Amino acid sequence: MTNYKRIMGTLLVLLCMHAAGWAKAPKYVFYFIGDGMGLNQVVATQYYLRSCAGELGITPLGFAQFPYTGIATSYSSSSDVTDSAAGGTALATGHKTYNGAIGVDHKVIPVTSIAEKAHRHGAKVGVATSVTINHATPASFYAHQKSRNDYYEIGAQLATSGFEFFAGGDLAEKVNPDDPTAPHLYDLAQEAGYTIARGYDGYTASSHADKIILIQHEEAVENTLPYAIDATTADLTLSQVTRAAIDHLYDKRHKQGFFLMVEGGKIDYACHANDAATALQEVVDFDNAIGIAYEFYKQHPKETLIVITADHETGGFTLGNGSYALNFAALQAQKASQAGFSRIVNRMRHENKDSVTWNQMQQALKANFGFWDTISLSERDEKALYSEFERSFTGEKNIKMAESLYYRDEPISALAVRILNRIAMVSWPVGSHTAAYVPIFAIGNGAEQFVGQMDNTDIPKRIAAIAGYNR
Amino acid sequence: MTNYKRIMGTLLVLLCMHAAGWAKAPKYVFYFIGDGMGLNQVVATQYYLRSCAGELGITPLGFAQFPYTGIATSYSSSSDVTDSAAGGTALATGHKTYNGAIGVDHKVIPVTSIAEKAHRHGAKVGVATSVTINHATPASFYAHQKSRNDYYEIGAQLATSGFEFFAGGDLAEKVNPDDPTAPHLYDLAQEAGYTIARGYDGYTASSHADKIILIQHEEAVENTLPYAIDATTADLTLSQVTRAAIDHLYDKRHKQGFFLMVEGGKIDYACHANDAATALQEVVDFDNAIGIAYEFYKQHPKETLIVITADHETGGFTLGNGSYALNFAALQAQKASQAGFSRIVNRMRHENKDSVTWNQMQQALKANFGFWDTISLSERDEKALYSEFERSFTGEKNIKMAESLYYRDEPISALAVRILNRIAMVSWPVGSHTAAYVPIFAIGNGAEQFVGQMDNTDIPKRIAAIAGYNR
Repeated sequence: MTNYKRIMGTLLVLLCMHAAGWAKAPKYVFYFIGDGMGLNQVVATQYYLRSCAGELGITPLGFAQFPYTGIATSYSSSSDVTDSAAGGTALATGHKTYNGAIGVDHKVIPVTSIAEKAHRHGAKVGVATSVTINHATPASFYAHQKSRNDYYEIGAQLATSGFEFFAGGDLAEKVNPDDPTAPHLYDLAQEAGYTIARGYDGYTASSHADKIILIQHEEAVENTLPYAIDATTADLTLSQVTRAAIDHLYDKRHKQGFFLMVEGGKIDYACHANDAATALQEVVDFDNAIGIAYEFYKQHPKETLIVITADHETGGFTLGNGSYALNFAALQAQKASQAGFSRIVNRMRHENKDSVTWNQMQQALKANFGFWDTISLSERDEKALYSEFERSFTGEKNIKMAESLYYRDEPISALAVRILNRIAMVSWPVGSHTAAYVPIFAIGNGAEQFVGQMDNTDIPKRIAAIAGYNR
Repeated sequence: MTNYKRIMGTLLVLLCMHAAGWAKAPKYVFYFIGDGMGLNQVVATQYYLRSCAGELGITPLGFAQFPYTGIATSYSSSSDVTDSAAGGTALATGHKTYNGAIGVDHKVIPVTSIAEKAHRHGAKVGVATSVTINHATPASFYAHQKSRNDYYEIGAQLATSGFEFFAGGDLAEKVNPDDPTAPHLYDLAQEAGYTIARGYDGYTASSHADKIILIQHEEAVENTLPYAIDATTADLTLSQVTRAAIDHLYDKRHKQGFFLMVEGGKIDYACHANDAATALQEVVDFDNAIGIAYEFYKQHPKETLIVITADHETGGFTLGNGSYALNFAALQAQKASQAGFSRIVNRMRHENKDSVTWNQMQQALKANFGFWDTISLSERDEKALYSEFERSFTGEKNIKMAESLYYRDEPISALAVRILNRIAMVSWPVGSHTAAYVPIFAIGNGAEQFVGQMDNTDIPKRIAAIAGYNR
């Protein structure tokens, strides 16, 4: 190399660093994980949004417009098709492990998560989700447990994590099923200095607290946040959770900044149930939460990195049913999730002492799926609904419930969703996870490193390197 | 802005251009289109390759390791689910059009393709495919026709294109079905100065020719290149086509370089037939052809751009069947495509004057699908095969053939493929196209512009801008 070239090269590096201002690591790192959010879920939501305007094509989601995109493989050490525990552990720790493992490698040896590294580095840390806070994905960021089903033990590790912020619907198994004399998980957490805040108002009332666990209001029907399609204005939302997390973690004088993981956990739930309208509205809800982070990014562009990915795809969600068309506009007619309509049907059952009439059921189906209104039904579909109504509400009481991973739904609710999905021209070949690529979208300081095909384990490794968490 | 900053900025731009050497447009542009190659087809091939070594996870394809990745939407102006004509036209011209249109917009007005722009710019141009050269995708680069089915008219426009290189299996409808007195398409082409070369040897014998149309050898059984899984050493391959194209188009003294489009057209055929082993080997074959371009890129890194994409996904191809596992190793047992095995069955039918025995059929199934050998069958699958054999070879001769878009196959061949796919834990919800994202992989001068979510119409626009074809 000539001296000229060497001098030019050195000057170039210095100038680039100077001009770009990127030489410093990002202080604020957002890591969004859409559970079950494959590439098809992302593009389908954009077709859905556009179809609401009666047009072909897409209306872009906010995060889909982020400048950097990558694709990642998601296999685990025990199977080409990962579960959320091995997927979460890979995304949290950069280690492949067996399906079911939380924060341990394939030899059941604990491995450090990026959240733990960030905390050691001095960053404030938040872990948030729309499901239970000791569910597989969030758990992978603070716990180390042989099995994802050890909810109580995982919850106990939450209390000792020292992380500044947790949020979700609730904790699962707050009482130890193996030892009822063991302390309640929230007692453990409070002893460790956590304030339990209920609902967004509960958060604002205790935002001065040192360490917070933010959960749903007391009257919530589930231990997760409700599906966006079912939510009422009283419910805590993933956007509120994200806003609270930033409010709690951000301190401009704290030079190590913060690390925040937010999981859109119910995209996966809806995809397990093969419930398209509900899944797509969960993706919109997830995008809204990311939008809160994006607002923060715009105020701190050089100091912020936002990375969005997924742990796996769920359902083999397919945009098409064999014709060369989609009819996603039909999904607008759906006003409750399969689980939500199941609750409505169940309520009808109890309020009417089991003597629900076909007319009452038709009114409920009309209100929640647009049937006989905006959605016309074939004679065959109408017959199928009537038969299911007869089976469910007259004669024998031994109803075969519609089982998906997280719900046992009224069969007429599952049938209504299946009919609407078919009318919308969606296909769901499976009710489980698949080995599809997961998408990566990134913006901010270091975002250009999330381009290309990579493995899911590369993502936390790159974030840690960019943010300087390994130092 | 301070003077200091202005000076530093100017210096930076100059130094960057100097150091990177990227200031010049690429002279050599490769545009690879995998017809029907969705993201799942790409990642599935990598799982398949790894499973051949008896391991979990992936063995990366060459092109999947290219440094830049993007994702593109593929809807047409008439439907959210495109066909190959509207998809090809979008990728060739940057214009949305209706399904069925070749090189015309939604008002049936001709629109200029990137190949035509490159040719006007002075670049030599090649258009190559593994299917017929007047099929939708290649046609979109040189023809302007209301309907993709106007094969004769499209073939006639090929002759007047002036492009230096064409390749594929053959031309479809070389004789005008509406006017048998109209000239044969190869006569038209020869009058326009084209040399028709048959097979790779035919190419080498006429490589000095000015303009070449390279097609299959005379004994070929189809008018496309055979599926990789069915090919014999006598057959022309997509890699040979790519090698011939580079050999013919590259001239280091020609300062406008070349533009070459290569379509892997039979990925789509196999996906329409829901034939996984055949589809994945087509992706491998496509990767091999891209490998030839990559070798060229390594010799001319600053002067070359390679972009790989697809026109749409076909089949809703899903990596999973409801269990949390894949068994892609099973696909290794398949030695013929559904169409190839259909030909074998048909030959057995004729050679044995229709008195094929179950034992003969079992031998053929064993040799081509590994049944009763490496692949053990359930009693139910065995019964299904035997029933199909009985239906197909005894009693009534009115057999219901298995129809997919491009083939009418023996039903026992379709059944064998379906059984093996189920054993491999693959799902194919549809036999048509879907609106999934299409992948983009890129390397070389300008490749960094193919990152992020974009529309398929953006791809040729960006290539044209990078290569300076608009000047």
